[in-house]
Amino acid sequence: MAQPLAILVAGGTFDKQYDELSGRLFFRDTHVGEMLRLGRSRLDITIETVMMVDSLDMDDEARARIVERCRARSERAIVITHGTDTMVETAQAIAQAGFDGKTIVLTGAMVPYAFGSSDGLFNLGSALSFAQVLPAGVYVAMNGQHFDWDEVRKNRERGVFEWRPA
Amino acid sequence: MAQPLAILVAGGTFDKQYDELSGRLFFRDTHVGEMLRLGRSRLDITIETVMMVDSLDMDDEARARIVERCRARSERAIVITHGTDTMVETAQAIAQAGFDGKTIVLTGAMVPYAFGSSDGLFNLGSALSFAQVLPAGVYVAMNGQHFDWDEVRKNRERGVFEWRPA
Amino acid sequence: MAQPLAILVAGGTFDKQYDELSGRLFFRDTHVGEMLRLGRSRLDITIETVMMVDSLDMDDEARARIVERCRARSERAIVITHGTDTMVETAQAIAQAGFDGKTIVLTGAMVPYAFGSSDGLFNLGSALSFAQVLPAGVYVAMNGQHFDWDEVRKNRERGVFEWRPA
Amino acid sequence: MAQPLAILVAGGTFDKQYDELSGRLFFRDTHVGEMLRLGRSRLDITIETVMMVDSLDMDDEARARIVERCRARSERAIVITHGTDTMVETAQAIAQAGFDGKTIVLTGAMVPYAFGSSDGLFNLGSALSFAQVLPAGVYVAMNGQHFDWDEVRKNRERGVFEWRPA
Repeated sequence: MAQPLAILVAGGTFDKQYDELSGRLFFRDTHVGEMLRLGRSRLDITIETVMMVDSLDMDDEARARIVERCRARSERAIVITHGTDTMVETAQAIAQAGFDGKTIVLTGAMVPYAFGSSDGLFNLGSALSFAQVLPAGVYVAMNGQHFDWDEVRKNRERGVFEWRPA
Repeated sequence: MAQPLAILVAGGTFDKQYDELSGRLFFRDTHVGEMLRLGRSRLDITIETVMMVDSLDMDDEARARIVERCRARSERAIVITHGTDTMVETAQAIAQAGFDGKTIVLTGAMVPYAFGSSDGLFNLGSALSFAQVLPAGVYVAMNGQHFDWDEVRKNRERGVFEWRPA
Repeated sequence: MAQPLAILVAGGTFDKQYDELSGRLFFRDTHVGEMLRLGRSRLDITIETVMMVDSLDMDDEARARIVERCRARSERAIVITHGTDTMVETAQAIAQAGFDGKTIVLTGAMVPYAFGSSDGLFNLGSALSFAQVLPAGVYVAMNGQHFDWDEVRKNRERGVFEWRPA
Repeated sequence: MAQPLAILVAGGTFDKQYDELSGRLFFRDTHVGEMLRLGRSRLDITIETVMMVDSLDMDDEARARIVERCRARSERAIVITHGTDTMVETAQAIAQAGFDGKTIVLTGAMVPYAFGSSDGLFNLGSALSFAQVLPAGVYVAMNGQHFDWDEVRKNRERGVFEWRPA
């Protein structure tokens, strides 16, 4: 009865960790599996790590791989965890490539999940829910809200997503 | 552009705290406001604490008060935080009283938010998202899933929600 | 160069966990090993779980077992994790049995380690440090302080340890 | 009856926070006060923020200020929170300047306190305890151990403190 979902992991703040030897933030494995366990998820989810990059290192080639993976997946509902700084650009790339009748929801976090005070778990619960019930399309889910891919922007001064002036 | 939502707080595991003098779990104030801040929610939400009771202490009178508050609220989208053991019964009471064209989503937590490893933040993000996009009706949102009020039960042995055999 | 230490686990709030099926606090395994890893301890420590009981369930027989284990251990420095309500009584029992030239430090927590906001890690770091440098004797280490076994009491109203009026 | 202690804050990993707008680690206020509350400390402690710098930005001038503040403080027991990479050098500078009959203990953290999995609380409990009972001298307290200032080094590959070969 539950529809299958895919989570495509692209990295971003969501998955940053603290390297105690270098004192720097870095990527290792995604935390999405652990977050689903913490959330007691009973959804039928396949997690696919597409890449582990900083939002600012997301270029056209990386974006093309995400588009390709969205097309290749058989699930009709897909959540993409992505850095917030270029999440809107990736949403546009997916939508403009033609999203193939799927519901695709991009989400991320302002604070790494590995830190005590992350918004990641809230956003993941939110994105998975929107992905199950919104009509086909490409969306950004942040701050408890959902936006169509062509009506959203990140306000970098305030660290929030908001509707874009037409 | 954002629709107003209400969160009705009924207590439950969600809001239990540890009393370090007595060594017992108890209720004080709801954590819902803090959770919304952590989730960087930008939704237009009004929080109303209706009661602070254990799921097992939820009786017909308490349930009638929740029904009454659902009717009285002007928002079309309502999330109710509730103990998991009797969440389904309260959902039924609301639905049978006639839910008045609103989308009402009950959610809760298996582990108190104040503890390190709670599913509460995931569930809150999930419930708020379902409340925004599901058609009018009464639902339970747990484990990343949503259920109609009349098709769900709690599996107490496993601590999860599941579809009820017809 | 590092002296060997023993940690005797007696239970107490330190090790309480939340049972998400029953909604009650209970004991399973001690968290002391995990806490030492978190603290990056490089001490030569042996952990021995003597019992897992609530402070209020600590009776003379249980206390006699702790006294016996203190005697049996070969380490000269011993930390005992114990419920706070009867910690002073157990300290007295050990001291009155003759503590055999060892430095024995009892500690505990006001809030379970498994919860987000526990004093357990602070107390464990403190107790292990006192155990390494205090002269032979029986002590209670709580609230950053150390007390001789015969000069301390728990103030139950305030949830702190303090010097006992002579 | 409790002796007064001072905590001199010099920054270091201990106090790093995550800036959710820039995605970088930075310093704002020290977390030491919050950590003492969490540890339910009842010690008579004065916290003085001397500086907030990365261990690698600690230069001779900064070090001279710490030495000066150690001398100026009236307390006989002083804990210094400091970045781990140059903690040993600062301990040496204090010792060589003549530490004036005081017990001075440097400590730090491998992971910021603001992150979920920090060793900071363990180390702070440990350092405060050593500072109360060790004889006058300059020490480093890390990994549950204490070292004289002239017998310790940081093993950067392993991220631990260890005795230095003579």
